[in-house]
Amino acid sequence: MKMEIVFNKPYQTGQEFQNIQESLTSMCISGNGVFTKKCHAFFEREYGFAKVLLTSSCTDALEMAAILLNIGPGDEVIMPSYTFVSTANAFVLRGAKIVFADSRSDHPGIDEDAIEDLITPRTKAIVPVHYAGAACDMVKIMEIAHRHKIMVVEDAAQAIDSYCLDAEGKPKPLGSWGHLSAFSFHETKNIISGEGGMLVINDVSFIERAEIIWEKGTNRSQFFRGQVDKYGWVDIGSSFLPSDIIAAFLYAQLESINHIQNRRKEIWNLYYRHLLPLQEGGFLKLPSIPNFASNNAHMFYAVCNSLEQRTALISFLKMNGIIAVFHYQSLHRSQFHLSKNDDVYLPHADHYTDCLLRLPMFFELSNEDVHNVASAIKEFFDL
Amino acid sequence: MKMEIVFNKPYQTGQEFQNIQESLTSMCISGNGVFTKKCHAFFEREYGFAKVLLTSSCTDALEMAAILLNIGPGDEVIMPSYTFVSTANAFVLRGAKIVFADSRSDHPGIDEDAIEDLITPRTKAIVPVHYAGAACDMVKIMEIAHRHKIMVVEDAAQAIDSYCLDAEGKPKPLGSWGHLSAFSFHETKNIISGEGGMLVINDVSFIERAEIIWEKGTNRSQFFRGQVDKYGWVDIGSSFLPSDIIAAFLYAQLESINHIQNRRKEIWNLYYRHLLPLQEGGFLKLPSIPNFASNNAHMFYAVCNSLEQRTALISFLKMNGIIAVFHYQSLHRSQFHLSKNDDVYLPHADHYTDCLLRLPMFFELSNEDVHNVASAIKEFFDL
Repeated sequence: MKMEIVFNKPYQTGQEFQNIQESLTSMCISGNGVFTKKCHAFFEREYGFAKVLLTSSCTDALEMAAILLNIGPGDEVIMPSYTFVSTANAFVLRGAKIVFADSRSDHPGIDEDAIEDLITPRTKAIVPVHYAGAACDMVKIMEIAHRHKIMVVEDAAQAIDSYCLDAEGKPKPLGSWGHLSAFSFHETKNIISGEGGMLVINDVSFIERAEIIWEKGTNRSQFFRGQVDKYGWVDIGSSFLPSDIIAAFLYAQLESINHIQNRRKEIWNLYYRHLLPLQEGGFLKLPSIPNFASNNAHMFYAVCNSLEQRTALISFLKMNGIIAVFHYQSLHRSQFHLSKNDDVYLPHADHYTDCLLRLPMFFELSNEDVHNVASAIKEFFDL
Repeated sequence: MKMEIVFNKPYQTGQEFQNIQESLTSMCISGNGVFTKKCHAFFEREYGFAKVLLTSSCTDALEMAAILLNIGPGDEVIMPSYTFVSTANAFVLRGAKIVFADSRSDHPGIDEDAIEDLITPRTKAIVPVHYAGAACDMVKIMEIAHRHKIMVVEDAAQAIDSYCLDAEGKPKPLGSWGHLSAFSFHETKNIISGEGGMLVINDVSFIERAEIIWEKGTNRSQFFRGQVDKYGWVDIGSSFLPSDIIAAFLYAQLESINHIQNRRKEIWNLYYRHLLPLQEGGFLKLPSIPNFASNNAHMFYAVCNSLEQRTALISFLKMNGIIAVFHYQSLHRSQFHLSKNDDVYLPHADHYTDCLLRLPMFFELSNEDVHNVASAIKEFFDL
């Protein structure tokens, strides 16, 4: 029988359905309902976030951040090129010029040492992306931002339950560093709700306006708290809040977060152990977790030596019933960005675009599956 | 025992839960899944819409429309002032100046005869809002738009399963008239999914770009159809697509749409019959459905003679356990719009802001409830 190992399988704890039943039975199905508030409380309690607001997607959370920072035409925003389109689009929608930084040589995350040279008087924000859930050097980035009076928005789409060591060497949750942060609960993430996201507000001066923007630019939250006697149009904004049905699903996942994370880390470590000989033999590179970062086991990737090698390896694995995939097409090389006549040379981002390979990685992946994937890769390299 | 009649109770057919179970079991929970496609097919088949795309909200659908029309700074968009903030915000987010028109004297919808005087060389779009699901005069509006080469976006948030007579006197579905249209499935609507919406594309030249904008500005749809070999960033866009869990809920409602609509119309007609003596006595005005429009029984409202009368009536009903509510605060009088130093005089919009009263209206409202609400109103007027 031919092996079949898919790339991703969204995991359900079993409690999602009961929560949704509760949501439907209580007729609490529009935004900001009982489960939304439970999710908010969970994140504020467990990770010390000053304030969180669930959104329909991580894209939405990034768009809220762009609105909160009053990003407008002429403003510049610095971010890595090796990221998802939404990191950039959220700011482009407000008129920003995106200034792309290269990745680190040892990691797809932004090269922290490249940031300062890109800052101009028009720079409004830095958007580090914690690729694969491994922290960017937030001590360094926050210091640069502070010195230049620039805001920081963490794109923590993949970075739930991950940490960066602070100046005293204590782990501080990703998402709690920037003035604002955005998380994703898309079905490809560790903790999911189908589609879904969250804005984290650490700079408390943004909280009041964030609630307004979340509620379509109205002061509806103040109305429900009895602070105003009717609510109306006071700002720009959108309908960023998800149905409580989505929050009901998400809350089930949050209650099992330790269980989910522990198993994912086991899988990750098993991959690492199986594939280490390949790195030692120079066939490919395994993920390097910077010493200030934790590993939340969002993704297991390997970096091939060339595009041709990666293409051949993907085909070989597919022939063996294993789905492995490449990842981002660096945004500085996209049709959209090149149309702006803003060509830049970012060799590390180009390298990850061509050579990074993602292996199957999900909660229900068995140890045997991991063994089989690793064996197939070794076979490809004649080991 | 004291009577308790709430203002709205979201209705579930009973099939929603089974659909969601199917969605969860099949692990099809992110956007554009099986139920999303079923909903798309339903609308295209039943209402002859050229192309539809589910969105996370009606607000999102309006934002997609604004992006598709390339609305930018300096562009003007004409719409009624008596509407929800999202009608305006979606275009303000792209930099548009909103030009507010008054309501009709006999209906809260836009005064079609006021539109042409507001058109300037910078007018990019007209956004009629089908208030309470009763059509604006789309023959007249489309003729004006065509003559001035202006686009029309129908805000059909409340207008599901409603019609406007065409030039030959044949009913044509609302949402099928404008170049683009937006619907809402918020829990307060006839057909619901908690939060939710839909963009309708009638001008087929917008279809290809709409799919790109829907998928975060990427050509992912073309990739899945095998038209390109990898997908990338080609345009602005956002994550407009809802989780398939939401579509699963919605599809259950769509399968019962006739059942839902028939009962709502019964309730509406019963209100009308009970309250007609009050209109005849000059105490308040009942909804007037223009002769070119159908009634989808989205809302039952009455128009009081003054703000003081309405306030007293709301209090009286509340004392009797009945929740009736006022509706929009006209946008031309909002804090946000007034801050733009653009004061206009729109007496009909002001009148509806002050005097329109919405009565309890939902599928499970019993005939006895309707009778009790009507009796309480009569008692208020000493009838």
